[in-house]
Amino acid sequence: MCADGPITPGECLSVYDAIRLRRDVRAEFSGDVVDDATLLRILEAAHRAPSVGNSMPWDFVVIRDPATLNKFADHVADKRREFRDALPEDRAETFTPIKIEGIVESGTGIVVTHNQSRGGTHVLGRASVPETGIYSTILSIQNLWLAATAEGVGVGWVSFYDTPVLADLLNLPEHVRPVAWLCVGPVREFQSVPDLERFGWRTRRPLEAAVHWEQFASRP
Amino acid sequence: MCADGPITPGECLSVYDAIRLRRDVRAEFSGDVVDDATLLRILEAAHRAPSVGNSMPWDFVVIRDPATLNKFADHVADKRREFRDALPEDRAETFTPIKIEGIVESGTGIVVTHNQSRGGTHVLGRASVPETGIYSTILSIQNLWLAATAEGVGVGWVSFYDTPVLADLLNLPEHVRPVAWLCVGPVREFQSVPDLERFGWRTRRPLEAAVHWEQFASRP
Repeated sequence: MCADGPITPGECLSVYDAIRLRRDVRAEFSGDVVDDATLLRILEAAHRAPSVGNSMPWDFVVIRDPATLNKFADHVADKRREFRDALPEDRAETFTPIKIEGIVESGTGIVVTHNQSRGGTHVLGRASVPETGIYSTILSIQNLWLAATAEGVGVGWVSFYDTPVLADLLNLPEHVRPVAWLCVGPVREFQSVPDLERFGWRTRRPLEAAVHWEQFASRP
Repeated sequence: MCADGPITPGECLSVYDAIRLRRDVRAEFSGDVVDDATLLRILEAAHRAPSVGNSMPWDFVVIRDPATLNKFADHVADKRREFRDALPEDRAETFTPIKIEGIVESGTGIVVTHNQSRGGTHVLGRASVPETGIYSTILSIQNLWLAATAEGVGVGWVSFYDTPVLADLLNLPEHVRPVAWLCVGPVREFQSVPDLERFGWRTRRPLEAAVHWEQFASRP
């Protein structure tokens, strides 16, 4: 929308262009590791997310130790097999070529965690809808993702894991819950079409189907 | 970061500046109603969010009927009183001057809903962590919020409500859950400091406290 010609990453990338350029990255990590200054700019963007009652219930664990990355990648490979084995034949064939993670190749994992006890007993705005706590943590992930895109850094959200396994891997305290493993690293390019569309897993839903006026319209 | 001088809204506002400029708006709505073309650009940005298995489980209900806005505002006023009455004396005093919604003043409500059944039985990436469905819907809200900021449109997330009341108000089908009421409208200005900091409800946590390296460090 603001770029002349193809959208390319850059410190001043517009928010609309970042939203268009952003991809869930699996196969395009360059093999370089994101430097700490860039990483902290991205984490600062995450940390500026809105949160219910200003509770800021998120934390970010940065992981680069190859032993930890490999251990988690092995666990994810097991979960991938489990999912594949549960699919009907035709879906299993569509699924097989789809890469679901870049844990080791990205060089950096960021585990985003949620702490519902932060902010004490009376969190302003959380009394009627307690889930707004975890929602706040999730909002921070989208800030992180868009800032990373501006930096030419790809993010791939991995969700093929058992939560207790991940909590154990990072020594999380009881009251701190892992909500995402993000593979984070510089990319060669951003694909223009999401992987799951390119590989025929699932097509986009048109915007018109998602927008309703005054009341919810049941549509096919 | 990219703006010379103060950050102002604009179609090409950088993602970093949008993240800094964004506020949870209550008192700054101008009284104008956001036009449909702008609203649809903002909703398209929301609709470009990442989603688990490309399931796009969100819907957006746009509400401008004054009868509906007033009805919801009345319900929220009740919930506000309930929350206030449950606070200890000193917190109740801090809470009293804080405005918690701009439902009528903004002129437009967007209710974001979640449909966990969209995408069928085998949603790629949702088998081990089923919450990634609702997380996808929440990610779309942050896209919406940042795009709105670029447009000079404020967003205020209201969470003082009972979920069944809101579901009923919009005639939501059983399998569709409301997750947020967003007050959306042009603003006179964005505050530079979040309301809950300005009113002394709760201060910011420093970034250093939120970032951990390799393992989760328990800090005060």
